[in-house]
Amino acid sequence: MNKINPVRVDSQIFLDESITNLMSNPIPFSSSCPVPLKDYPHIISAHGSGGKLMHELIEKMFVPAFGATPEFELHDSTVVNLPGSRIAFTTDSYVVRPLFFPGGDIGKLAVNGTVNDLAMSGARPLFLSLGFILEEGLLMETLWRVVQSVREAAHMAQVRIITGDTKVVDKGKGDGIFINTAGIGIIEHQRVIAPSALQTGDVIILNGDIARHGMAIMAVREGMEFESAIESDCAPLAGLVGCLLSEGIEIHCMRDLTRGGLATSLKELAVSSGKGVRIDETLIPVREDVASACEILGLDPLYVANEGRFVCFVPGSEEKKTIEIMRRHPLGLGACVIGEVRGDTAGLLTLKKSIGSVRILDMLAGDQLPRIC
Amino acid sequence: MNKINPVRVDSQIFLDESITNLMSNPIPFSSSCPVPLKDYPHIISAHGSGGKLMHELIEKMFVPAFGATPEFELHDSTVVNLPGSRIAFTTDSYVVRPLFFPGGDIGKLAVNGTVNDLAMSGARPLFLSLGFILEEGLLMETLWRVVQSVREAAHMAQVRIITGDTKVVDKGKGDGIFINTAGIGIIEHQRVIAPSALQTGDVIILNGDIARHGMAIMAVREGMEFESAIESDCAPLAGLVGCLLSEGIEIHCMRDLTRGGLATSLKELAVSSGKGVRIDETLIPVREDVASACEILGLDPLYVANEGRFVCFVPGSEEKKTIEIMRRHPLGLGACVIGEVRGDTAGLLTLKKSIGSVRILDMLAGDQLPRIC
Repeated sequence: MNKINPVRVDSQIFLDESITNLMSNPIPFSSSCPVPLKDYPHIISAHGSGGKLMHELIEKMFVPAFGATPEFELHDSTVVNLPGSRIAFTTDSYVVRPLFFPGGDIGKLAVNGTVNDLAMSGARPLFLSLGFILEEGLLMETLWRVVQSVREAAHMAQVRIITGDTKVVDKGKGDGIFINTAGIGIIEHQRVIAPSALQTGDVIILNGDIARHGMAIMAVREGMEFESAIESDCAPLAGLVGCLLSEGIEIHCMRDLTRGGLATSLKELAVSSGKGVRIDETLIPVREDVASACEILGLDPLYVANEGRFVCFVPGSEEKKTIEIMRRHPLGLGACVIGEVRGDTAGLLTLKKSIGSVRILDMLAGDQLPRIC
Repeated sequence: MNKINPVRVDSQIFLDESITNLMSNPIPFSSSCPVPLKDYPHIISAHGSGGKLMHELIEKMFVPAFGATPEFELHDSTVVNLPGSRIAFTTDSYVVRPLFFPGGDIGKLAVNGTVNDLAMSGARPLFLSLGFILEEGLLMETLWRVVQSVREAAHMAQVRIITGDTKVVDKGKGDGIFINTAGIGIIEHQRVIAPSALQTGDVIILNGDIARHGMAIMAVREGMEFESAIESDCAPLAGLVGCLLSEGIEIHCMRDLTRGGLATSLKELAVSSGKGVRIDETLIPVREDVASACEILGLDPLYVANEGRFVCFVPGSEEKKTIEIMRRHPLGLGACVIGEVRGDTAGLLTLKKSIGSVRILDMLAGDQLPRIC
C-alpha cells in the first residue's frame, strides 16, 4: 500500500505510445520544496508510518515529481502493458525491528509483503528482486537465517528471486539488515481491479481477524507476555486471490491492510474512489488476546498493521460465493463481510459502533507503530 | 554488476513451464551457514565492495539459496520471457556518501545505475521502482533535492518511475538517505548478450576514460583540491547501447564498470565465460588529474568505480564500425579498443604493461572504496 503510482491502472501505458510523450513533464517541476518547511523541516518517523504525513509527502512531493497525470491512483502496485502481456510492478523496503518475531522475520515479510502488493492488483507474482543493505558487524549467521527464510517464503509463495544486490554500510549507519524487494506479476484476466472500480452496494469482505502482525511485533518490543505468544499473520495472499479470480468472482478492488491498518487502507480507498465506505464494528474480528494487548498499549486494532489480511470489494450478489471460496483456503478460514460501499458520505470512512452510533474515521495521524515492516 | 542471477540468460524461463517445477529446490537447503564462520563471523565492509568477499557471499550463500541451476551466470540484469515479450529485471541499492558529489548525487546515481544494468543486457529501460529509506532528522529540503535529481535523471534516461515506497528509520539507524531502484527493460532484438557469448578474437571496446566516479567521491571525502574538480562520469548508457543495437552491431557481451572497476568487471567475465581476457595498459584512457589523484591516494585506477563507463565485446570485424557509432554519441566520444578475448589463459584477466611484461589481475581483494554507490 501507499505507493507512488502515477500511472492509472485503468489507462495503461502502451508501448506504441512514444516514450517521448511519456517523458514530457517540464523540468524543473518546482522552484521550492513543496512540503511546507515551516511545518516539517525534517523527516520524522511518521513520514514512514503509512498515515497522514506519509500521504502528504507522496502527494506533495513524489506525485508532482513522478506522476504523469493528475488523476493517478494510490494502489498497491502499478499495472502496465507490455507487448503480449499485462504486468504489475511494485516495490517495498523492509526495516522491521526486531528482525525476528513470533510468526516471521524480515525475510519472510520482505517476500510476502511484495507478493501481496502484486496480488492486490490481481496479478500472479512471478519474479522478485532482493536488495540487502547490511550493517558492518552483522552476524553472518543472522544473514544466513534471513536468507533461508527468504528462500522458504519464496517457495511457499511460488515466486522466484531472480536478481539481487548487496550493500554494506558502516557500523552505526544502518540497523543490522534492511531489505528491499521489488516484484513483477502477470495479469491473466481482463478485469480492472482498482479503487476506481468500486461500486455503490459492493460488500467488503475481510479474510480473517485483524491486528496480529502489529501486536506480535509490539509484544516483543514491550516484553509483554501472554499465555500464548501472538503470532504475526504474515502470509502470501496470491494463492487465495488466485482462487477467487479463477472462480470468476467479479472483484472490484482489493487492498492489503499493512501500515496504518484496516482503517487507513479503507480511508485511502474512500478518498481515491470518491465513494463512501461503511464498516460495522461488531463484524470486524479481533482475537481476544490481540484485543487485550491493544487495550494495554492503548492502540486501536483498526489502525494496527497486518501482513496477511486484505479486504476484497465485490458486488452484493457475489458475497456468498466469495466467502465460500475464501473459507476453503487456509488463509481465508475467517472470511466475513465487514461493511459496504455507499453512495452517500463520499470520500468518507464511517464506522458503525456496537452501540449503534456512527463515527467518521480518518487515516492514522501520528506514528503508532514505527518500523512495523 | 555483481547480482544474484540464478537464471541463465541463454536458457530463459518460459511461462509455459510449470511454476511448480521452477520451485522444486528442496527446503531447507543447508543445515549450517555456508560462509565459513571461522573466517568471517561478521559482515565487514568488503562484503559490499564488489570484490572477492562479495563474490564469496553471493556464490556460497545466495546462489545455493536462490539459484535454480548450478550453471547460473553473474550478469547485470536477468532476462526472462513473458508471453509476447522478453524483459530484463534488475535491482540496486544506493548508499553512497556524501549524498551530493561533483557530477551527481545519490538520486542521479540510483536512476543511472539501474538503467545501465538493464542496458548491459541489451534491454531498453522502461520502468523503475523507487524505494527510500530515510533517517529521522533528514532535512526535508535534502530529500526534495534528491527527488528533483531522480526526476531529471529519469527524464534524461527516458524511463518512468512508476511505483515507490518510503520507510523512515530512527536517528542513528540509517545515514540520511538510502535508495533502492529496481528496473524493467524490454529486449527488442534476438541477440543473446551474455558472458557465455564471448568468442576468442572478440575485441574489447571501452566508451571513455576510467576511474572518474570513484575519484570524484574520494576527492570530496578526503578534502582534496585540484585545479578543476573531478566530476563523476555518472550517466545513462542505454541511449548509446541503443545506437549500437539499432545499427546491427553483433554485440557479444557488455558490462558496466561499477564497484571494483574495470579490472574486477573483466575478471568476472573471464571467470564466467571461461575465456582469457587480455587488456593493454597503454590503451586504457585515464585522465591526468584522475591519475594524479589515484597516485596520491595509492589507488589503482583499474579498480576504481565508474558509473558511466562500460566495455563492449564485439567480433574483430565489427571494431571499426562500433567505434565510429560510439564516437557519434556524447557518451562514446572517447571510445577505444583496450584489449581482446583469447583462447589461452582461460578464466584469467591479464594486463600487458607499458614495459611489455604481462601481469595477471585478480578481482578487488579488500575494500578500496566503501560506499561508492
